Amino acid sequence: MQKVTIVGASGYTGRELTNLVDRHPQMQLHGLMTARKHVVPDAPALPVDPQIQPLDLGVVGQCDGVFLCTPHGASAELVVECLEVGCKVVDLSADFRLHDPGVYASVYGLQHQAPDLLSESVYGLTEHKRQAVAAARLIANPGCYPTSILLPLLPLSENDLLDQTTTILADSKSGVSGAGKSPKDRTVYGAVAENFLAYAVGSHRHTPEIHQELGTNNLVFVPHLLPMFRGMLSTIYVKPSGGQDADSLRARLREHYANEPFIQVFDRGQPETDRVAGSNQCHIAVAQAGDTVVLTSAIDNLGKGAAGQAMQNMNLLLGLEETQGLL
Amino acid sequence: MQKVTIVGASGYTGRELTNLVDRHPQMQLHGLMTARKHVVPDAPALPVDPQIQPLDLGVVGQCDGVFLCTPHGASAELVVECLEVGCKVVDLSADFRLHDPGVYASVYGLQHQAPDLLSESVYGLTEHKRQAVAAARLIANPGCYPTSILLPLLPLSENDLLDQTTTILADSKSGVSGAGKSPKDRTVYGAVAENFLAYAVGSHRHTPEIHQELGTNNLVFVPHLLPMFRGMLSTIYVKPSGGQDADSLRARLREHYANEPFIQVFDRGQPETDRVAGSNQCHIAVAQAGDTVVLTSAIDNLGKGAAGQAMQNMNLLLGLEETQGLL
Amino acid sequence: MQKVTIVGASGYTGRELTNLVDRHPQMQLHGLMTARKHVVPDAPALPVDPQIQPLDLGVVGQCDGVFLCTPHGASAELVVECLEVGCKVVDLSADFRLHDPGVYASVYGLQHQAPDLLSESVYGLTEHKRQAVAAARLIANPGCYPTSILLPLLPLSENDLLDQTTTILADSKSGVSGAGKSPKDRTVYGAVAENFLAYAVGSHRHTPEIHQELGTNNLVFVPHLLPMFRGMLSTIYVKPSGGQDADSLRARLREHYANEPFIQVFDRGQPETDRVAGSNQCHIAVAQAGDTVVLTSAIDNLGKGAAGQAMQNMNLLLGLEETQGLL
Amino acid sequence: MQKVTIVGASGYTGRELTNLVDRHPQMQLHGLMTARKHVVPDAPALPVDPQIQPLDLGVVGQCDGVFLCTPHGASAELVVECLEVGCKVVDLSADFRLHDPGVYASVYGLQHQAPDLLSESVYGLTEHKRQAVAAARLIANPGCYPTSILLPLLPLSENDLLDQTTTILADSKSGVSGAGKSPKDRTVYGAVAENFLAYAVGSHRHTPEIHQELGTNNLVFVPHLLPMFRGMLSTIYVKPSGGQDADSLRARLREHYANEPFIQVFDRGQPETDRVAGSNQCHIAVAQAGDTVVLTSAIDNLGKGAAGQAMQNMNLLLGLEETQGLL
Repeated sequence: MQKVTIVGASGYTGRELTNLVDRHPQMQLHGLMTARKHVVPDAPALPVDPQIQPLDLGVVGQCDGVFLCTPHGASAELVVECLEVGCKVVDLSADFRLHDPGVYASVYGLQHQAPDLLSESVYGLTEHKRQAVAAARLIANPGCYPTSILLPLLPLSENDLLDQTTTILADSKSGVSGAGKSPKDRTVYGAVAENFLAYAVGSHRHTPEIHQELGTNNLVFVPHLLPMFRGMLSTIYVKPSGGQDADSLRARLREHYANEPFIQVFDRGQPETDRVAGSNQCHIAVAQAGDTVVLTSAIDNLGKGAAGQAMQNMNLLLGLEETQGLL
Repeated sequence: MQKVTIVGASGYTGRELTNLVDRHPQMQLHGLMTARKHVVPDAPALPVDPQIQPLDLGVVGQCDGVFLCTPHGASAELVVECLEVGCKVVDLSADFRLHDPGVYASVYGLQHQAPDLLSESVYGLTEHKRQAVAAARLIANPGCYPTSILLPLLPLSENDLLDQTTTILADSKSGVSGAGKSPKDRTVYGAVAENFLAYAVGSHRHTPEIHQELGTNNLVFVPHLLPMFRGMLSTIYVKPSGGQDADSLRARLREHYANEPFIQVFDRGQPETDRVAGSNQCHIAVAQAGDTVVLTSAIDNLGKGAAGQAMQNMNLLLGLEETQGLL
Repeated sequence: MQKVTIVGASGYTGRELTNLVDRHPQMQLHGLMTARKHVVPDAPALPVDPQIQPLDLGVVGQCDGVFLCTPHGASAELVVECLEVGCKVVDLSADFRLHDPGVYASVYGLQHQAPDLLSESVYGLTEHKRQAVAAARLIANPGCYPTSILLPLLPLSENDLLDQTTTILADSKSGVSGAGKSPKDRTVYGAVAENFLAYAVGSHRHTPEIHQELGTNNLVFVPHLLPMFRGMLSTIYVKPSGGQDADSLRARLREHYANEPFIQVFDRGQPETDRVAGSNQCHIAVAQAGDTVVLTSAIDNLGKGAAGQAMQNMNLLLGLEETQGLL
Repeated sequence: MQKVTIVGASGYTGRELTNLVDRHPQMQLHGLMTARKHVVPDAPALPVDPQIQPLDLGVVGQCDGVFLCTPHGASAELVVECLEVGCKVVDLSADFRLHDPGVYASVYGLQHQAPDLLSESVYGLTEHKRQAVAAARLIANPGCYPTSILLPLLPLSENDLLDQTTTILADSKSGVSGAGKSPKDRTVYGAVAENFLAYAVGSHRHTPEIHQELGTNNLVFVPHLLPMFRGMLSTIYVKPSGGQDADSLRARLREHYANEPFIQVFDRGQPETDRVAGSNQCHIAVAQAGDTVVLTSAIDNLGKGAAGQAMQNMNLLLGLEETQGLL
């Protein structure tokens, strides 16, 4: 049994990870922690609520791995401390995703607190970084939007199947759990239910992360807020390179992901977010519309977009079967 | 007082129109009808439900105007009968939107039953067809998706502000009321709530209508189904022509619609569907994202996308103030 | 035209009232105010948002009536100030509903700041206090739960149709807008959607208000939180007095409310909250279940339960037709 | 490994059971079936959908147990056939819950097709029928409403802690999945979302089942439809017998269920349906309100109210650990 702990366990992602570890046949939960100095519960705990304690590095040091569900800015220092006590880290914040501390500073408005680790950390889009993840001690778990956009695009861009002169457009829609558990004007029921909007048009913080991993800035990303809790769908518009069309792009994706247990490339039909809710799955479809090819990819933003992929990475970090606790 | 009636009054659009006529200071409801031979209510009527009768052309003949909320295919014949008894018609179906009966046949899989009226009917995108509407006796009320896409695009395309070599991409999202009131596997609560998907990718029936009115086929349209009842948002990606950007496109739209009571072009912020719910408003924003300009437009698919615009058109048809009963 | 203003206009009830005044043919809105010293908007205002100013008693003094949508505790002092500048008041808080300042202190944990006005204020359950409302200058607008419970019960209890030895049980369910607009752990989308619970069992603050108006403490009230925005349904279990049953109780209610434009007592079927959403209506049904009679009453908690009834009262206060702007 | 199959697998309960069997360490799914002669899928199957075949009694005969998720009326004959081929049955319909075929005929409007089996079948409220279930070959899985009402009541009534002269009132609220997957006017999104109502007041078919198991008709049951998919909460009003109160009733329940892994009796706080969603748990709270005691119990209507309890019973039927696949 591998011992793991979760820091930042009171949020939505922390709760998902708690459940994943509970069901994992080879992982044992060694305490739930918050990074805050004092534990002030959001609401009076029910008898069935798990106990969350303040951060205890001594306990972290007894663990094989730690999941950090802490905000960007807070994670950087915690990562240093966790590595020092000998614990491998999957960090779910944005702190170690961008290679360039200057880009980080401009995107997040913060000086990076551990820039030396940026070259060591591995961007954990598992299907595309499997070997690096297995050899690492620090994983930067990808953002939910980048995961849903990169999974259908990478096998196409890496094989030069996309016309490089045409801007790729990624129109993404996310459930409100992506905005976190802390109450905000934007996340109250009255603002979310029976409402829909675009936000951060042309300026969302996940854009540089997508550009970095795709190896080009020729992609426009517009996120939207869905009136639902969990689930994410990205509709991605590409122009194929000469001689290619939806069928050939689909064939490429199906071949690339043929043996991936968490990625299904449909031969017909469209993905729906509720089919992947609560799972680590990504469902992808490819369709022709005029001379444009429309890629649609559905994930659970809390699953493959956060806790699920984090567990997939932790399995590899700890030498376990990659799919353990996730199927 | 002008007398009007509604055929197909039991559906969502019919209900909206019933409420609009009820509040209209210069319109009187002269019966609610169904086009079906027998009135079989969907559910046991409550004491507060309106009475709906089978179609009675004698009553229609006593009216100044009729709203047809009947399905495509059914409307064509009804229009002929209503015009024959001397009643002006706003048809909310797709039967008179396409000028070319061949296109109609290929899109809807039906021979058109009144092709002679196609040249007479006016496509009622009111802000762009005001004079023709006022002079007509038959209005083809636009589809909800085309309305949300054409309103932000037309003033730009007509002024050559868009790069014609780049495909316009319209990624639209609609509440489920657009699928009608009749129970379907796709519209039950369990299929809609906490779910999201694209559908009819590259093949939606509203595409030819958009192409016709825009005067180009260089637009890809992908609709999506939102987990909510009413509301529609279209996110439209365009490349501006040389020297143009989001600011100049926004300025053009603000000038074009400056005096339009139902269209607000924002100088900042993003439209949200719940701000236009229950109204005849269209809210539009314009933002830069790389060298792409992102137009977002929000309407109530049952309001400006159906019943509201139908009332706006009926007001003009009957010589009333265009905004009566709508502000 | 009567001039009115709204203090506390940024909340859900304030927004409803703003819309009601906008549509009122004989009322003019004379500014929107907040009781807070500084106006800090909850979110960046959109171009279509109304302007809200800090409280200005000079402006209040120029008005015929003021709606106070301020919290309990804050309203008491504001009422004094508004009355001093000669403006009639409909207070939507709980501050003037309880006659006894001792009960107020024990329920709300506050010393009442204007106990002298408690004997003057009129509990504005309009259908039952019409004459007193018309003669008053200060109305305590009833709570939403008490409104939904008292409307079906009062005509029965006043006519001795209920067995007084049996406890009346009122099981009420409310949409989340009743909890206000300010973000709370309990009101975020993730806590409300797809969830349901009872709260404040045996201890809700509306209970003394119901007991006072009903003239008995022999009623148990349990509120529940519905996964929806607006709407309230109370299911009330009574044992009729000797010789009475559901039919006779229903007949009594139908007769009592026969001429009331805002109250419909069904002869068949059950009320649904969405039929009264956005209106000032109360729908009531009466059914037999064993020897128990089950009363169900549906209101919009923001309509007849708050802003609608407030407008009904303001109409009477200002000498206007009671139904103006509400039908 | 025990072999099981599911008949009626395409509905909501069938889908839940499919997932439960998939995760069960000692059960193997031996085909999914429909009771209909021809398999007409509700919607075009996605590549990830399970294959459902017409009923094949030969396959059933190779199984150790079968779950019948078929409608009442259809189940009776199927049970006979399944037992004949030697397969133990958990029937989730109402066909074998009522001991008296006369009551069945009057409640369901049908002659019972297998009355001889009524005395053999065991009402599978597992915590209260454990030994009988383990010894049976036919289980009548309880209705969801009765499960949520009987679990908190039975330990109290059996110990004479309730005043027998006072009517017990059970005010229950259910998510819409209880109404099944087949599209109906009542279950479309537009009729469910943002709406709430009582139904079948005084006449719901689950009432005789509750009366039978409770051993008294002195209970009134009123069901309500919640605007959500899964989850059920019953609020039950009882008058305790002399000397008892909420504390003593709670103590009794906590003691009774102390060792039950699926039942949690809270010492503080109120149950919420989303805490039991997707599980076989029942959460119960007990509170005082005047001289009434208010019991609240939350279950997932598809979990402990259907598929979860069915699996609990099947485990016992097949000699497996009762909690297998459910924790």
